[in-house]
Amino acid sequence: APDADNELFQPLCPPENFALVTPGVYRSGFPRKKNFRFLKHIKLRSILTLILEDYPEPNLRFMEENNIQLLQFGVPGNKEPFVDIPEPKMALALAALLDRRNHPVLIHCNKGKHRTGCLVGLLRRYLRWSHTSICREYRLYSAPKERAMDQQFIELFDMGRIRPLVDPRWL
Amino acid sequence: APDADNELFQPLCPPENFALVTPGVYRSGFPRKKNFRFLKHIKLRSILTLILEDYPEPNLRFMEENNIQLLQFGVPGNKEPFVDIPEPKMALALAALLDRRNHPVLIHCNKGKHRTGCLVGLLRRYLRWSHTSICREYRLYSAPKERAMDQQFIELFDMGRIRPLVDPRWL
Repeated sequence: APDADNELFQPLCPPENFALVTPGVYRSGFPRKKNFRFLKHIKLRSILTLILEDYPEPNLRFMEENNIQLLQFGVPGNKEPFVDIPEPKMALALAALLDRRNHPVLIHCNKGKHRTGCLVGLLRRYLRWSHTSICREYRLYSAPKERAMDQQFIELFDMGRIRPLVDPRWL
Repeated sequence: APDADNELFQPLCPPENFALVTPGVYRSGFPRKKNFRFLKHIKLRSILTLILEDYPEPNLRFMEENNIQLLQFGVPGNKEPFVDIPEPKMALALAALLDRRNHPVLIHCNKGKHRTGCLVGLLRRYLRWSHTSICREYRLYSAPKERAMDQQFIELFDMGRIRPLVDPRWL
Protein backbone atom coordinates (compact mmCIF):
# COMPACT_ATOMS: atom_id res chain seq x y z
CA ALA A 1 0.00 0.00 0.00
CA PRO A 2 1.80 3.12 -1.19
CA ASP A 3 -0.13 5.38 1.23
CA ALA A 4 0.91 3.34 4.23
CA ASP A 5 4.52 3.39 3.00
CA ASN A 6 4.30 7.11 2.59
CA GLU A 7 3.06 7.56 6.14
CA LEU A 8 6.27 5.97 7.43
CA PHE A 9 8.23 8.89 6.04
CA GLN A 10 5.99 11.59 7.49
CA PRO A 11 7.60 13.35 10.44
CA LEU A 12 6.28 12.50 13.90
CA CYS A 13 4.50 15.22 15.88
CA PRO A 14 4.62 14.94 19.66
CA PRO A 15 1.83 16.80 21.48
CA GLU A 16 2.37 20.40 22.58
CA ASN A 17 4.68 20.74 25.60
CA PHE A 18 5.68 17.06 25.37
CA ALA A 19 8.54 15.74 27.50
CA LEU A 20 9.75 12.76 29.47
CA VAL A 21 9.48 13.17 33.23
CA THR A 22 11.13 10.02 34.53
CA PRO A 23 11.49 6.55 32.98
CA GLY A 24 7.93 5.37 32.23
CA VAL A 25 6.30 8.82 32.73
CA TYR A 26 5.59 11.40 30.00
CA ARG A 27 3.84 14.80 30.13
CA SER A 28 2.15 17.01 27.51
CA GLY A 29 -0.71 19.26 26.55
CA PHE A 30 -3.95 17.78 25.19
CA PRO A 31 -3.14 15.08 22.59
CA ARG A 32 -4.82 15.73 19.24
CA LYS A 33 -5.37 13.54 16.19
CA LYS A 34 -2.15 14.66 14.53
CA ASN A 35 -0.20 13.37 17.57
CA PHE A 36 -1.69 9.84 17.58
CA ARG A 37 1.00 8.32 15.31
CA PHE A 38 3.68 9.67 17.62
CA LEU A 39 1.88 8.35 20.72
CA LYS A 40 1.67 4.91 19.10
CA HIS A 41 5.48 4.96 18.83
CA ILE A 42 6.04 5.41 22.56
CA LYS A 43 3.76 2.41 23.33
CA LEU A 44 1.72 3.89 26.20
CA ARG A 45 -0.13 1.68 28.62
CA SER A 46 -2.15 4.56 30.13
CA ILE A 47 -3.13 8.17 29.75
CA LEU A 48 -3.67 10.06 33.00
CA THR A 49 -5.77 13.15 32.34
CA LEU A 50 -6.49 15.96 34.78
CA ILE A 51 -9.25 17.58 32.69
CA LEU A 52 -12.79 17.82 34.07
CA GLU A 53 -14.58 17.38 30.71
CA ASP A 54 -15.65 14.15 29.00
CA TYR A 55 -12.83 12.66 26.96
CA PRO A 56 -13.27 13.20 23.18
CA GLU A 57 -14.54 10.33 21.03
CA PRO A 58 -11.56 10.20 18.58
CA ASN A 59 -9.11 9.94 21.49
CA LEU A 60 -11.15 7.16 23.12
CA ARG A 61 -11.21 5.25 19.82
CA PHE A 62 -7.43 5.65 19.38
CA MET A 63 -6.87 4.40 22.93
CA GLU A 64 -9.15 1.39 22.48
CA GLU A 65 -7.37 0.41 19.24
CA ASN A 66 -4.02 0.60 20.99
CA ASN A 67 -4.99 -0.93 24.31
CA ILE A 68 -4.35 2.24 26.29
CA GLN A 69 -6.36 2.72 29.48
CA LEU A 70 -7.77 6.09 30.55
CA LEU A 71 -7.13 7.25 34.11
CA GLN A 72 -9.17 10.41 34.72
CA PHE A 73 -8.61 12.56 37.79
CA GLY A 74 -10.47 15.70 36.80
CA VAL A 75 -9.44 18.78 38.77
CA PRO A 76 -9.89 22.53 38.25
CA GLY A 77 -6.66 24.56 37.94
CA ASN A 78 -5.58 26.98 40.66
CA LYS A 79 -7.29 30.31 40.02
CA GLU A 80 -6.78 33.23 42.40
CA PRO A 81 -8.55 33.91 44.67
CA PHE A 82 -11.33 31.31 44.82
CA VAL A 83 -10.37 28.02 43.15
CA ASP A 84 -7.81 25.61 44.61
CA ILE A 85 -6.63 22.33 43.14
CA PRO A 86 -8.16 19.71 45.49
CA GLU A 87 -5.45 17.84 47.40
CA PRO A 88 -7.31 14.53 47.85
CA LYS A 89 -7.89 14.11 44.10
CA MET A 90 -4.26 15.00 43.33
CA ALA A 91 -3.13 12.43 45.93
CA LEU A 92 -5.10 9.77 44.05
CA ALA A 93 -3.55 10.90 40.76
CA LEU A 94 -0.04 10.74 42.25
CA ALA A 95 -0.71 7.25 43.60
CA ALA A 96 -1.85 6.09 40.13
CA LEU A 97 1.28 7.67 38.64
CA LEU A 98 3.55 5.84 41.08
CA ASP A 99 1.95 2.49 40.24
CA ARG A 100 4.33 0.94 37.71
CA ARG A 101 1.60 -1.32 36.38
CA ASN A 102 0.25 1.81 34.64
CA HIS A 103 3.56 2.62 32.89
CA PRO A 104 4.39 3.93 30.39
CA VAL A 105 1.90 6.68 31.25
CA LEU A 106 1.26 10.11 29.70
CA ILE A 107 0.02 12.87 32.06
CA HIS A 108 -1.86 15.73 30.43
CA CYS A 109 -4.30 18.58 31.00
CA ASN A 110 -5.14 21.24 28.40
CA LYS A 111 -1.83 23.07 27.94
CA GLY A 112 0.45 20.79 29.95
CA LYS A 113 1.47 23.78 32.04
CA HIS A 114 -0.37 24.18 35.34
CA ARG A 115 -2.27 21.10 36.50
CA THR A 116 0.26 18.79 34.82
CA GLY A 117 3.07 20.92 36.28
CA CYS A 118 1.57 20.51 39.77
CA LEU A 119 1.31 16.73 39.47
CA VAL A 120 4.88 16.47 38.10
CA GLY A 121 6.02 18.69 40.99
CA LEU A 122 4.43 16.29 43.50
CA LEU A 123 6.16 13.37 41.80
CA ARG A 124 9.49 15.23 42.09
CA ARG A 125 8.85 15.87 45.78
CA TYR A 126 8.15 12.16 46.22
CA LEU A 127 11.50 11.51 44.46
CA ARG A 128 13.12 13.94 46.94
CA TRP A 129 14.19 16.62 44.45
CA SER A 130 15.13 19.95 46.01
CA HIS A 131 12.41 22.63 45.92
CA THR A 132 14.61 24.83 43.72
CA SER A 133 14.93 22.08 41.08
CA ILE A 134 11.20 21.35 41.23
CA CYS A 135 10.29 25.01 40.68
CA ARG A 136 12.81 25.44 37.89
CA GLU A 137 11.13 22.57 36.02
CA TYR A 138 7.62 23.85 36.83
CA ARG A 139 8.50 27.28 35.40
CA LEU A 140 10.22 25.86 32.31
CA TYR A 141 6.97 24.26 31.16
CA SER A 142 4.54 26.95 32.34
CA ALA A 143 6.46 30.08 31.20
CA PRO A 144 5.40 32.81 30.67
CA LYS A 145 2.29 31.89 32.73
CA GLU A 146 3.88 30.60 35.92
CA ARG A 147 1.58 30.66 38.94
CA ALA A 148 2.99 31.25 42.43
CA MET A 149 -0.08 29.40 43.76
CA ASP A 150 0.92 26.25 41.89
CA GLN A 151 4.45 26.32 43.29
CA GLN A 152 2.99 26.84 46.76
CA PHE A 153 0.58 23.93 46.20
CA ILE A 154 3.56 21.69 45.41
CA GLU A 155 5.48 22.89 48.46
CA LEU A 156 2.62 22.61 50.97
CA PHE A 157 0.97 19.39 49.74
CA ASP A 158 0.77 16.87 52.58
CA MET A 159 2.82 13.86 51.45
CA GLY A 160 1.30 11.89 54.35
CA ARG A 161 -1.75 11.50 52.08
CA ILE A 162 0.25 9.27 49.77
CA ARG A 163 1.50 6.56 52.14
CA PRO A 164 -1.90 4.85 52.66
CA LEU A 165 -2.58 4.94 48.90
CA VAL A 166 0.62 3.38 47.63
CA ASP A 167 1.48 -0.30 47.71
CA PRO A 168 5.29 -0.49 47.93
CA ARG A 169 5.25 -3.70 45.86
CA TRP A 170 4.10 -1.69 42.85
CA LEU A 171 6.86 0.88 42.97
CA ALA B 1 26.40 6.18 60.95
CA PRO B 2 24.16 9.16 61.74
CA ASP B 3 25.78 11.29 59.01
CA ALA B 4 25.06 8.75 56.32
CA ASP B 5 21.47 8.45 57.59
CA ASN B 6 21.16 12.18 57.49
CA GLU B 7 22.34 12.33 53.91
CA LEU B 8 19.42 10.13 52.88
CA PHE B 9 17.04 12.92 53.85
CA GLN B 10 18.88 15.68 52.02
CA PRO B 11 17.05 16.75 48.88
CA LEU B 12 18.50 15.61 45.56
CA CYS B 13 19.89 18.27 43.20
CA PRO B 14 19.84 17.43 39.49
CA PRO B 15 22.37 19.40 37.42
CA GLU B 16 21.31 22.72 35.83
CA ASN B 17 19.01 22.29 32.80
CA PHE B 18 18.55 18.57 33.56
CA ALA B 19 15.94 16.56 31.66
CA LEU B 20 15.17 13.19 30.13
CA VAL B 21 15.42 13.12 26.36
CA THR B 22 14.25 9.62 25.53
CA PRO B 23 14.39 6.38 27.54
CA GLY B 24 18.07 5.84 28.42
CA VAL B 25 19.20 9.37 27.42
CA TYR B 26 19.49 12.40 29.76
CA ARG B 27 20.73 15.97 29.14
CA SER B 28 22.07 18.74 31.40
CA GLY B 29 24.58 21.49 31.99
CA PHE B 30 27.97 20.69 33.53
CA PRO B 31 27.54 18.29 36.48
CA ARG B 32 29.08 19.62 39.70
CA LYS B 33 29.91 17.98 43.03
CA LYS B 34 26.54 18.85 44.56
CA ASN B 35 24.83 16.89 41.74
CA PHE B 36 26.79 13.65 42.21
CA ARG B 37 24.35 12.09 44.69
CA PHE B 38 21.51 12.71 42.24
CA LEU B 39 23.52 11.23 39.35
CA LYS B 40 24.20 8.12 41.42
CA HIS B 41 20.43 7.67 41.72
CA ILE B 42 19.85 7.51 37.98
CA LYS B 43 22.52 4.79 37.58
CA LEU B 44 24.36 6.13 34.53
CA ARG B 45 26.53 3.89 32.42
CA SER B 46 28.14 6.79 30.51
CA ILE B 47 28.57 10.52 30.36
CA LEU B 48 28.88 12.00 26.87
CA THR B 49 30.50 15.40 27.07
CA LEU B 50 30.84 17.92 24.25
CA ILE B 51 33.32 20.20 26.06
CA LEU B 52 36.81 20.74 24.62
CA GLU B 53 38.61 21.04 27.98
CA ASP B 54 40.13 18.27 30.12
CA TYR B 55 37.54 16.70 32.39
CA PRO B 56 37.84 17.83 36.07
CA GLU B 57 39.49 15.49 38.57
CA PRO B 58 36.53 15.27 41.07
CA ASN B 59 34.19 14.28 38.24
CA LEU B 60 36.61 11.60 36.99
CA ARG B 61 36.91 10.20 40.53
CA PHE B 62 33.11 10.10 40.94
CA MET B 63 32.79 8.31 37.61
CA GLU B 64 35.45 5.74 38.45
CA GLU B 65 33.80 5.00 41.81
CA ASN B 66 30.47 4.46 40.09
CA ASN B 67 31.69 2.63 37.00
CA ILE B 68 30.60 5.37 34.61
CA GLN B 69 32.57 5.68 31.36
CA LEU B 70 33.48 9.03 29.81
CA LEU B 71 32.73 9.58 26.12
CA GLN B 72 34.28 12.88 25.07
CA PHE B 73 33.46 14.46 21.74
CA GLY B 74 34.85 17.96 22.23
CA VAL B 75 33.39 20.55 19.87
CA PRO B 76 33.29 24.36 19.85
CA GLY B 77 29.81 25.93 19.92
CA ASN B 78 28.42 27.76 16.87
CA LYS B 79 29.63 31.37 17.03
CA GLU B 80 28.71 33.82 14.27
CA PRO B 81 30.40 34.39 11.91
CA PHE B 82 33.53 32.23 12.08
CA VAL B 83 33.05 29.12 14.22
CA ASP B 84 30.86 26.19 13.13
CA ILE B 85 30.15 23.02 15.07
CA PRO B 86 32.07 20.34 13.10
CA GLU B 87 29.65 17.84 11.48
CA PRO B 88 31.99 14.81 11.51
CA LYS B 89 32.58 14.99 15.27
CA MET B 90 28.85 15.45 15.93
CA ALA B 91 28.12 12.42 13.73
CA LEU B 92 30.45 10.35 15.95
CA ALA B 93 28.72 11.71 19.06
CA LEU B 94 25.28 10.83 17.65
CA ALA B 95 26.46 7.31 16.80
CA ALA B 96 27.73 6.84 20.39
CA LEU B 97 24.38 8.15 21.67
CA LEU B 98 22.43 5.67 19.54
CA ASP B 99 24.48 2.74 20.83
CA ARG B 100 22.33 1.25 23.57
CA ARG B 101 25.34 -0.39 25.19
CA ASN B 102 26.21 3.11 26.46
CA HIS B 103 22.78 3.69 28.10
CA PRO B 104 21.76 5.21 30.42
CA VAL B 105 23.84 8.12 29.14
CA LEU B 106 23.95 11.79 30.18
CA ILE B 107 24.82 14.34 27.46
CA HIS B 108 26.24 17.65 28.65
CA CYS B 109 28.26 20.70 27.64
CA ASN B 110 28.68 23.79 29.85
CA LYS B 111 25.15 25.18 30.07
CA GLY B 112 23.24 22.32 28.43
CA LYS B 113 21.81 24.82 25.95
CA HIS B 114 23.61 25.02 22.62
CA ARG B 115 25.94 22.10 21.87
CA THR B 116 23.75 19.73 23.89
CA GLY B 117 20.68 21.22 22.17
CA CYS B 118 22.26 20.53 18.76
CA LEU B 119 23.05 16.90 19.58
CA VAL B 120 19.55 16.34 21.02
CA GLY B 121 18.13 17.94 17.85
CA LEU B 122 20.07 15.47 15.69
CA LEU B 123 18.76 12.59 17.80
CA ARG B 124 15.20 13.90 17.30
CA ARG B 125 15.78 14.11 13.53
CA TYR B 126 17.01 10.50 13.62
CA LEU B 127 13.79 9.63 15.49
CA ARG B 128 11.86 11.44 12.71
CA TRP B 129 10.38 14.25 14.81
CA SER B 130 8.99 17.16 12.80
CA HIS B 131 11.29 20.18 12.49
CA THR B 132 8.77 22.34 14.39
CA SER B 133 8.83 19.97 17.38
CA ILE B 134 12.63 19.77 17.29
CA CYS B 135 13.00 23.55 17.32
CA ARG B 136 10.42 23.99 20.05
CA GLU B 137 12.47 21.70 22.28
CA TYR B 138 15.77 23.34 21.28
CA ARG B 139 14.39 26.77 22.21
CA LEU B 140 12.85 25.58 25.49
CA TYR B 141 16.30 24.62 26.82
CA SER B 142 18.34 27.46 25.26
CA ALA B 143 15.97 30.42 25.96
CA PRO B 144 16.63 33.32 26.10
CA LYS B 145 19.86 32.56 24.15
CA GLU B 146 18.50 30.62 21.18
CA ARG B 147 20.79 30.58 18.14
CA ALA B 148 19.34 30.48 14.63
CA MET B 149 22.66 28.90 13.54
CA ASP B 150 22.11 25.94 15.85
CA GLN B 151 18.62 25.33 14.49
CA GLN B 152 20.01 25.53 10.97
CA PHE B 153 22.81 23.11 11.90
CA ILE B 154 20.17 20.60 13.04
CA GLU B 155 18.12 21.09 9.87
CA LEU B 156 21.02 20.86 7.39
CA PHE B 157 23.12 18.11 9.03
CA ASP B 158 23.69 15.28 6.57
CA MET B 159 22.09 12.18 8.15
CA GLY B 160 23.90 10.08 5.52
CA ARG B 161 26.96 10.44 7.79
CA ILE B 162 25.27 8.30 10.41
CA ARG B 163 24.47 5.14 8.48
CA PRO B 164 28.08 3.87 8.16
CA LEU B 165 28.70 4.58 11.86
CA VAL B 166 25.74 2.78 13.36
CA ASP B 167 25.41 -0.97 13.82
CA PRO B 168 21.67 -1.71 13.67
CA ARG B 169 22.15 -4.58 16.16
CA TRP B 170 22.99 -2.01 18.86
CA LEU B 171 19.87 0.09 18.39
